[in-house]
Amino acid sequence: MTIAQRADPAQPPIKYYWEDLVAGSTLELGSTTVLREEVLAFARQFDPQPFHLDDEAAAHSVFGKLAASGWHTCAMAMGLMVRGFLHEAASLGSPGLENIKWLRPVYPGDTLTLRQRFLETRPMKSRPDVGLARSLWEMFNQHGEQVLSMDGWGMFRRRTPGAD
Amino acid sequence: MTIAQRADPAQPPIKYYWEDLVAGSTLELGSTTVLREEVLAFARQFDPQPFHLDDEAAAHSVFGKLAASGWHTCAMAMGLMVRGFLHEAASLGSPGLENIKWLRPVYPGDTLTLRQRFLETRPMKSRPDVGLARSLWEMFNQHGEQVLSMDGWGMFRRRTPGAD
Repeated sequence: MTIAQRADPAQPPIKYYWEDLVAGSTLELGSTTVLREEVLAFARQFDPQPFHLDDEAAAHSVFGKLAASGWHTCAMAMGLMVRGFLHEAASLGSPGLENIKWLRPVYPGDTLTLRQRFLETRPMKSRPDVGLARSLWEMFNQHGEQVLSMDGWGMFRRRTPGAD
Repeated sequence: MTIAQRADPAQPPIKYYWEDLVAGSTLELGSTTVLREEVLAFARQFDPQPFHLDDEAAAHSVFGKLAASGWHTCAMAMGLMVRGFLHEAASLGSPGLENIKWLRPVYPGDTLTLRQRFLETRPMKSRPDVGLARSLWEMFNQHGEQVLSMDGWGMFRRRTPGAD
């Protein structure tokens, strides 16, 4: 059983195979609200810099007030990506990502929305049952300001292996 | 008070200003062991794909067994970067990162070590008190196999603002 062939009734059915990912198309992947306690918990575990942990230190930093770790922002984007797209996609994972840009600080209380735009797709030469899709991730806060941009390739099972 | 000028006795003294970051030099930033409970907790919150949450699904995935989210791997690298370097550096944050590559799966029980290599440095034209340094992050497991690579620019206060 591969991920794309799973029969677990707890998993939603596959909606997106590689052929369904069309360059130029866009998906809106939902929103999440940033909780202060989660900002602090993430920072304590993974990014204990003063401006992510302490109001006073943050007030005197480039962020101006307590701000989420950039890695927390990426992780929240991933949460939206999984719940809004990958759970219904024949995804086989990703080799990596490029061009992560933390464009603006993310603060407790912010509501973040994620948009995925497919930039290009191509078959995987070494595996006729797999295709690749490169997508742009763009996350915005409740003011419509972009806070995060990144892009990368994902691997997806093909609906029709080997077809042109 | 900026981060680099902090007087908090709980913070260690600044050891690394921009001038101390020399292209070609390398820092070993310590190690961390991957705990199964933390892999599951991270996946539940941020990356609930079956191969990060369920042994049976993982056994049939490209990972072969339960594997950490790539974002969890990045977050663990950041933990080592902060505790092993940034806590003693006059760091002003980072605009982003490039070329994240998840080279091998990370499994519960693995012990990961992080190495930072400085690739290039330059003054920041718009701010004579700040310099930029680009570094390569390389993380390895206990077998000496590289699991993560990424690189990016960081901003650091200068020991001697405006000097050539």
